[in-house]
Amino acid sequence: MDTKQMYSNSTEILQTVRKKKPIVHQITNYVTVQDCANVVLAMGGSPIMADAEQELEDIVRLSNALVINIGTLNGRTRSSMFTAAHIARDSGIPIILDPVGAGASSYRTQTVQNLISDLVPNVIRGNLSEIRSVAQLSSHTLGVDSAGCDGAEQVEETKEIACNLSRKLGCIVAITGKIDIVSDGTSIAIIENGHPALTRITGTGCMSTAMVGTCCAVTDDYFSATVTALLGMGIAGELASVHAGLGSFHTALFDHFSRLDGALLMQRGNLYVK
Amino acid sequence: MDTKQMYSNSTEILQTVRKKKPIVHQITNYVTVQDCANVVLAMGGSPIMADAEQELEDIVRLSNALVINIGTLNGRTRSSMFTAAHIARDSGIPIILDPVGAGASSYRTQTVQNLISDLVPNVIRGNLSEIRSVAQLSSHTLGVDSAGCDGAEQVEETKEIACNLSRKLGCIVAITGKIDIVSDGTSIAIIENGHPALTRITGTGCMSTAMVGTCCAVTDDYFSATVTALLGMGIAGELASVHAGLGSFHTALFDHFSRLDGALLMQRGNLYVK
Amino acid sequence: MDTKQMYSNSTEILQTVRKKKPIVHQITNYVTVQDCANVVLAMGGSPIMADAEQELEDIVRLSNALVINIGTLNGRTRSSMFTAAHIARDSGIPIILDPVGAGASSYRTQTVQNLISDLVPNVIRGNLSEIRSVAQLSSHTLGVDSAGCDGAEQVEETKEIACNLSRKLGCIVAITGKIDIVSDGTSIAIIENGHPALTRITGTGCMSTAMVGTCCAVTDDYFSATVTALLGMGIAGELASVHAGLGSFHTALFDHFSRLDGALLMQRGNLYVK
Repeated sequence: MDTKQMYSNSTEILQTVRKKKPIVHQITNYVTVQDCANVVLAMGGSPIMADAEQELEDIVRLSNALVINIGTLNGRTRSSMFTAAHIARDSGIPIILDPVGAGASSYRTQTVQNLISDLVPNVIRGNLSEIRSVAQLSSHTLGVDSAGCDGAEQVEETKEIACNLSRKLGCIVAITGKIDIVSDGTSIAIIENGHPALTRITGTGCMSTAMVGTCCAVTDDYFSATVTALLGMGIAGELASVHAGLGSFHTALFDHFSRLDGALLMQRGNLYVK
Repeated sequence: MDTKQMYSNSTEILQTVRKKKPIVHQITNYVTVQDCANVVLAMGGSPIMADAEQELEDIVRLSNALVINIGTLNGRTRSSMFTAAHIARDSGIPIILDPVGAGASSYRTQTVQNLISDLVPNVIRGNLSEIRSVAQLSSHTLGVDSAGCDGAEQVEETKEIACNLSRKLGCIVAITGKIDIVSDGTSIAIIENGHPALTRITGTGCMSTAMVGTCCAVTDDYFSATVTALLGMGIAGELASVHAGLGSFHTALFDHFSRLDGALLMQRGNLYVK
Repeated sequence: MDTKQMYSNSTEILQTVRKKKPIVHQITNYVTVQDCANVVLAMGGSPIMADAEQELEDIVRLSNALVINIGTLNGRTRSSMFTAAHIARDSGIPIILDPVGAGASSYRTQTVQNLISDLVPNVIRGNLSEIRSVAQLSSHTLGVDSAGCDGAEQVEETKEIACNLSRKLGCIVAITGKIDIVSDGTSIAIIENGHPALTRITGTGCMSTAMVGTCCAVTDDYFSATVTALLGMGIAGELASVHAGLGSFHTALFDHFSRLDGALLMQRGNLYVK
């Protein structure tokens, strides 16, 4: 895979989402849930949020991807996440995990470890401290909106963590931050799009994961799907950042989500794949 | 009832909402709940969200309408919906049901059937696939944001479904989509306002139901109340659609909710009542 | 304390928030939770929402303030509120209580009384009817967005209620409305900023409390912290009110939250402290 090929894949993935309108089932937190639904719709998908044990069998089976986000985990939803993941694996649809705040509490850390040892997701997306926790490397967490890879000095270390965890688990690992790193264990994609304002509103991590789920819902190439989603978020963030105020930035982000396509990605993407 | 009379009723209903500031109690989902509260406020009502069994007696009794939305149903909230509905009926306030995703899971389908057989709501509002499920007609559901009546070819069938279900249950039935149909079993209202962007953000169905609840809170004429609410949503959607981006569209929608009045409805309404 | 000193304190508090990025833990409602997270981020803090009993020990201990908001209380979250409050007291971090809808149901009223008799928060912020309920004075509640102190005629009574409750409990009491009153039992602050549009969107009370939590997270002077937060909300509301539509007003509010600093407070503040 090279950079040019990736843009070609991204173009097709975004087109297919608009054409097929895949159903993206999310078991997620109650803080950013509306934005997580709206980003799927803006990209052309169809979101469904459902977390009751009683309906998971039906809902997962009509869906094209399952996104699990532990942002406001509790005993009831934790149990639903395990059940849904098993049905998704059984149905052959991709499972995308957002380990929000892993490392911030042993309940989150343990839940993520249990989920992974029970059943490896197809993609895991988190910031650096969350992925360090998933990889059982030492870390410290500062809230749930803490930064990921914060600049060039950390790029090599971040690439290694993503690559090693990807190989160990056999899944796509995405570490987002100032620079986003995606690895499938062999290839590495480095995305230098984005804007600091993305860290100043809640939910951009969660939405990135919802975008990954939307792209994974229409292809088996989860590496390309994940890169496509993160490129889309980074570019939308850059375009929205003409608005300095955080309210207007938030609104503009959704304006740009609804305009994402391959041409825009190629024009604005700061991507390197090897 | 004719079209002219309906505009007169709508004008009075919207005025009365602003004057009386009715309390609208909603047991709803955690995806679109903030928008469901804000649309009530924008129209001049006072929303209260409460779903704990322990306080339903108090909350329902101080409210002027009860809206039940099964968007993210679970065992606890399901039980609260039944309890609240009984208190509402006992208090004489209208019950408005939004069967979100009925047909998508047997848990939702069954919950709606049980609610209706236990206690018929005063108004049921859904898209075509949801209402087909309520009416126990065969259907297939594509996510929770799937379309309703999609054009002229379906209008006659949709009218028949609305009318038959309304007669069978003895309640107002509203089927929303490209064309909205409202029936009280005798009269039919057809509304051709709206814009496709309303299907590209989450919650416009839920908000329509919250608007129905707000209008029903100030009148016994639930047919006129329902038509008023749906006209308001359709017109706000048209006016907001000058913004092509979905974030700006969403924001503009609330700007227009706060400006709804009888004059605007008469000027922009594409309504036919017979 | 005088007015000039307060502006000096406010300037330092807002600067310290941006510098230290305090972690603000909120156990809150699912209606306004996203706005409650975003306002903390806009001010420069780091929000964390977590309500599962299993992780409260970890989450509270990494936080700099705990905000408890009973907006959509249920048995599970009620229990978490008590547990979190005890850990917070044990850790020496401030506890800020928003008694949303106290007086509207005996469940809310009783929960607030039990919380307070178990463990007095450092700050209580509510509208007049909620604080009257906390103080066990007779009142009537009209929804959860009902007004507080509505004008000059009520100022003397409101000041007395705030001052008496503050002395009785030994905590800061803030009563917000057209005029905001804050008392520490000795000093009184009167804030005449704000705009009626703040009562026409949901969550401005909840966000005010989240702002109080953010300011309390960086100082022991909870009186100044509370005044700073309410000044910030009032001024942001005034600036945002150039937008007549409620959607645009809501967006602009966050634009202004991200620009709050001491200079703006001094320039626009309508504050009197004695």
